[in-house]
Amino acid sequence: MRYSATVENMEVKSIRIGLLGCGNVGKALVGLLESQREAILSRTGLDLTIQAIAVQNMEKHADLAATTKQITNNPADVVSSDDIDLVVEVIGGVDPAKELVEAALRSGKPVVTANKELLAKHGPELFEQADQGNLDLLFEAAVAGGVPLMRVLRESLKGEPIRRVMGIVNGTTNYVLSQMTERGISYSDALSEAQSAGFAESDPSADVDGQDAASKAAIIAMVAFGVRLGLSDVTYEGITDVSTDDIEFAKRFGHTIKLLAIAENDNGEVAVRVHPAMVPKHHPLASVRDSFNAVFVEGDAVGDLMLYGRGAGGNPTASAVLGDIIAAANNLTQETNNGLGNLRNTPIQSTQDLENAFYINLEVTDESGVLAAVASVFGKHGVSIRSMEQEGLDGEARIVFITHSSLERNVHTTLDELRELDCVIQIGTKIRVVEG
Amino acid sequence: MRYSATVENMEVKSIRIGLLGCGNVGKALVGLLESQREAILSRTGLDLTIQAIAVQNMEKHADLAATTKQITNNPADVVSSDDIDLVVEVIGGVDPAKELVEAALRSGKPVVTANKELLAKHGPELFEQADQGNLDLLFEAAVAGGVPLMRVLRESLKGEPIRRVMGIVNGTTNYVLSQMTERGISYSDALSEAQSAGFAESDPSADVDGQDAASKAAIIAMVAFGVRLGLSDVTYEGITDVSTDDIEFAKRFGHTIKLLAIAENDNGEVAVRVHPAMVPKHHPLASVRDSFNAVFVEGDAVGDLMLYGRGAGGNPTASAVLGDIIAAANNLTQETNNGLGNLRNTPIQSTQDLENAFYINLEVTDESGVLAAVASVFGKHGVSIRSMEQEGLDGEARIVFITHSSLERNVHTTLDELRELDCVIQIGTKIRVVEG
Repeated sequence: MRYSATVENMEVKSIRIGLLGCGNVGKALVGLLESQREAILSRTGLDLTIQAIAVQNMEKHADLAATTKQITNNPADVVSSDDIDLVVEVIGGVDPAKELVEAALRSGKPVVTANKELLAKHGPELFEQADQGNLDLLFEAAVAGGVPLMRVLRESLKGEPIRRVMGIVNGTTNYVLSQMTERGISYSDALSEAQSAGFAESDPSADVDGQDAASKAAIIAMVAFGVRLGLSDVTYEGITDVSTDDIEFAKRFGHTIKLLAIAENDNGEVAVRVHPAMVPKHHPLASVRDSFNAVFVEGDAVGDLMLYGRGAGGNPTASAVLGDIIAAANNLTQETNNGLGNLRNTPIQSTQDLENAFYINLEVTDESGVLAAVASVFGKHGVSIRSMEQEGLDGEARIVFITHSSLERNVHTTLDELRELDCVIQIGTKIRVVEG
Repeated sequence: MRYSATVENMEVKSIRIGLLGCGNVGKALVGLLESQREAILSRTGLDLTIQAIAVQNMEKHADLAATTKQITNNPADVVSSDDIDLVVEVIGGVDPAKELVEAALRSGKPVVTANKELLAKHGPELFEQADQGNLDLLFEAAVAGGVPLMRVLRESLKGEPIRRVMGIVNGTTNYVLSQMTERGISYSDALSEAQSAGFAESDPSADVDGQDAASKAAIIAMVAFGVRLGLSDVTYEGITDVSTDDIEFAKRFGHTIKLLAIAENDNGEVAVRVHPAMVPKHHPLASVRDSFNAVFVEGDAVGDLMLYGRGAGGNPTASAVLGDIIAAANNLTQETNNGLGNLRNTPIQSTQDLENAFYINLEVTDESGVLAAVASVFGKHGVSIRSMEQEGLDGEARIVFITHSSLERNVHTTLDELRELDCVIQIGTKIRVVEG
């Protein structure tokens, strides 16, 4: 970094950025930095320039040469270069991002990354490496894009006894569920529309099966509770089994179905999971529509808090990256860093040991005594029923239950036993119900 | 500050806090720090203790002596004491808070304050004093209590081109308006209930006339746009004129009435105001109920962002103060500070020059030709009408208009001229309409 003249009695500190990857987010960042450079300089004294960009295909990015000193297809050069003060990683995935981030930290450069997969799988070791080098490793954009959740959890709520964080952190699945809810269309129709509208990828599996949200849930838990864990500690289910019937029943019960990432802290034991959930209509998460993200935080002192915004897209994600760049650049010039602090090892609670209310949808034979038979299985395993609806269905019948809060393992045992009953034709969806 | 043994290979840094004021927020902070001290220590290495508390009436606070080394009724001693590393000011008001904050900064202590009035009136000079001393002056709790708006604006969005910030930042008025909307009760009944429920003070004037929200609006504008301004630059109106009729008409037009603090940046010109506004039902601010606060930020890159939570109350406010204490303590041990940066002088736009859609409620005589007469006055001043409803009213009639977006000064001229018409009996409320 170089110090030069002053702006309004602030010393100008030049920060030369090395950008790894130049897809949607990278391109948006280049544009945003270009337009905001003067404003940032006069407010903070930081002169932020993109010194080098590493891309896979240099010909495809020939237009960048006008504004950037160096375009290269060798990212290893960028992270080790003496002409670079700070590295921004927007390549995604573990390989080669992990090696590049490690090399940047080894050569004394703070890193800003948008890489959820990398942090969900290797976060704790990378945070430790950064701390040991007195360097920042910031990652606001890795979870919920433009929603400033990471900074709020890391800083504003660092002393807050957080009980639970529940988030809609995947825009694709929220778009699909919103369309199903508002227009009554099927999962597959909604997904096709989301693909046409650019809200879902041609291979949407990582989104719809819950894995993308699971990575974000792991990062949320690390930061919210200060614990060491990884993606493999997260239990996840996606939305592929949610039917129009489920959506309809949820409405009747006054709920909306959302895919939630949930991180809970029960006296030091942590549980992290992703699954569809029925959210009461009056809950702030219920009205988060389309591809928006929102995260609801419950703390003992702060009470209920929600952050809402754009969870993806080039510009919102670039905005989050830029906030981190300014923070890291500031710390770099002050020779400090802002780490996550000590992460403690923690017992991970099995989802089997969690308590939830459940929505359970059964197809049964349409004859007398069925409800009694089914109800007795629930009773035997201590799963208490809060409400029930029964309706005819072409000679068969459907019974829909909402249980009181029950141990997940007891609900599973109940369903296993119900499956053995002659009168039970099929067990449809089971969806957890959020209370409060 | 003192350094002692290590916790999990972190050096323990003792930070001795001097607390000025011990009302609701102060008491909640004492309790929260007590319960979280160990957790904060093991995560951050910071050992936070309350060393001294300055109160007006020492006998009333005799119970504090058990956990606090020094209880005094001389706050000047606390801010100058060598045994204090960091000062927390929760007295409120300008006098003596201003002198105490200045003295604390002069003696090299970072300050955390929850004092909106002090910052709305004297923010820029205090921020400058803090920066010159390389000290933090943090104030998350001064705006929207537990909602982490200040940190998000100061850090996450420091490089973001923010166009507009619109907030529900006064819990009392939001409670009153929510009750009027949901139960159809009058302003005065809703206010009495709010007083009984503890959501309004016995003298509610600073809340209901918009002044409290105006202080917060001034602070929001300073931080969001990096500009130097003060409470006197904010135009404000309260909710005392909002009638059950207005609430009813808003519903019919698909809107909800909220008291909004609005800070806008139009190519460097800033406008700051507080007034009741009709918010479209689908807007995220419309569903913010009861005494909750929420702030909606519109940025060119980040898009739409909303933060929602508890805007007042001892515990949520103490949570915000604690987040600031940890940040300031960290910076203190690293001998750095995190200031607002250069605040620029800015032209303040008169609200007369702003464009808004308006809801206008007229009582007129019930005879033919009235609508034509009224409409021609609107037309003459270039105020275009988007929708209109007319209804009989005991021999008189009421006409309710929603205009297209119009210059505020033209609307005022229109109303002045309407007032002169014989057929116009009374001009009821005019309420701005938020679009989008």
